[in-house]
Amino acid sequence: MRIALLGGTGDIGQALALRWAQDTDHEILIGSRDAGRARQKADEYVTELDSRGVDREVKGFANEMAADRADVVVLAVPAYHVRDTVEAVADRIGDADALVSPAVGMDRDESGFHYKPPGVGSVTELVAETAPEGVPVVGAFHNLSADRLANLDVELDLDTLVVGDDEDAVETVGTLADQIEGLRALSAGPAANAAEVESLTPLLINIAMENEGMHDVGVTFE
Amino acid sequence: MRIALLGGTGDIGQALALRWAQDTDHEILIGSRDAGRARQKADEYVTELDSRGVDREVKGFANEMAADRADVVVLAVPAYHVRDTVEAVADRIGDADALVSPAVGMDRDESGFHYKPPGVGSVTELVAETAPEGVPVVGAFHNLSADRLANLDVELDLDTLVVGDDEDAVETVGTLADQIEGLRALSAGPAANAAEVESLTPLLINIAMENEGMHDVGVTFE
Repeated sequence: MRIALLGGTGDIGQALALRWAQDTDHEILIGSRDAGRARQKADEYVTELDSRGVDREVKGFANEMAADRADVVVLAVPAYHVRDTVEAVADRIGDADALVSPAVGMDRDESGFHYKPPGVGSVTELVAETAPEGVPVVGAFHNLSADRLANLDVELDLDTLVVGDDEDAVETVGTLADQIEGLRALSAGPAANAAEVESLTPLLINIAMENEGMHDVGVTFE
Repeated sequence: MRIALLGGTGDIGQALALRWAQDTDHEILIGSRDAGRARQKADEYVTELDSRGVDREVKGFANEMAADRADVVVLAVPAYHVRDTVEAVADRIGDADALVSPAVGMDRDESGFHYKPPGVGSVTELVAETAPEGVPVVGAFHNLSADRLANLDVELDLDTLVVGDDEDAVETVGTLADQIEGLRALSAGPAANAAEVESLTPLLINIAMENEGMHDVGVTFE
């Protein structure tokens, strides 16, 4: 399978790229608004993987090109860039098996981080509203510490939650999550349940700030 | 320490009463709007504890009386009864070390459960707004399955999150949580962060509904 990480030069994009490259045979395409930057970061990922004895090709492209070639497209961009990123690739993703949304709208005050969803209810639903008709949208990978994921020395032992209205797409993305060693996908239901999933992210940041030794805290459900 | 569980005849009240009675020496007072009902349930808890070789006194009272006698008062009532319960006991809790809010506002549609906080932002903040001045309010115990807690055969291995603005009260309630075997309290910061804590409850219910074998799902942060 071909996975495009749009904004794959950022923290969570890098983290997912390294893990998928290490743990699976999927082809990883790094996307950026700046194709040169995407190629540079892709080379860095290849070098890091190589230093760990993992011989893998990871290529960089402009977002549009990465999206055009991929079966699964991950919007690894900040919440405030989700809409323009989807619009930029809209005519390239008609055939995609899934458009994946890990972004969360948050703000911060003196108390901590707070969930601030877009008016439609959640970033996942914003993506669904913005995406071309027929492109199945899945929310996933919100609640993962990018630092923890990007450090390939760390055993994850983490859960991630998957939401979406298209069962096949949800299953595809859940499988991609499960293929990362130490990561388990759990369903949280339809896209209408995405707000409760996304609001876990500011909670995790607050827990990280308030408790000793929990800098890269994640969550497991048992 | 004396702990009053207002609405202690309900699911989460029963669960906390049994665990504290089993695992600590704190005096447990069961409160209800109906004192007879409180006494009846308290007797049931004593019988259950006795059947497990735990010889403990648990007494039932009208909510006002339970609150009056307690150091820590837990509002183990549904979200829509929080305000009237606080108002009913307001002139009895001036000396309390902590007024504890485990309730969460939720509604349900065909997709699942959704977080519906009161206008002030969270139930914890609603309690703080309603409580007499100087009574420290702490949010805690939101994300625990009452069934799992009430089944004393189950080893918990769970976390619960504590929020509040009064450090002493937060510490007191955190300690009470930690004294339940297998339960760990983590701080999520000031009361202004309560919404992110409370919204974990509908998420857990959605996960329970969507995944096999997770009926009494709880959460751990690592």
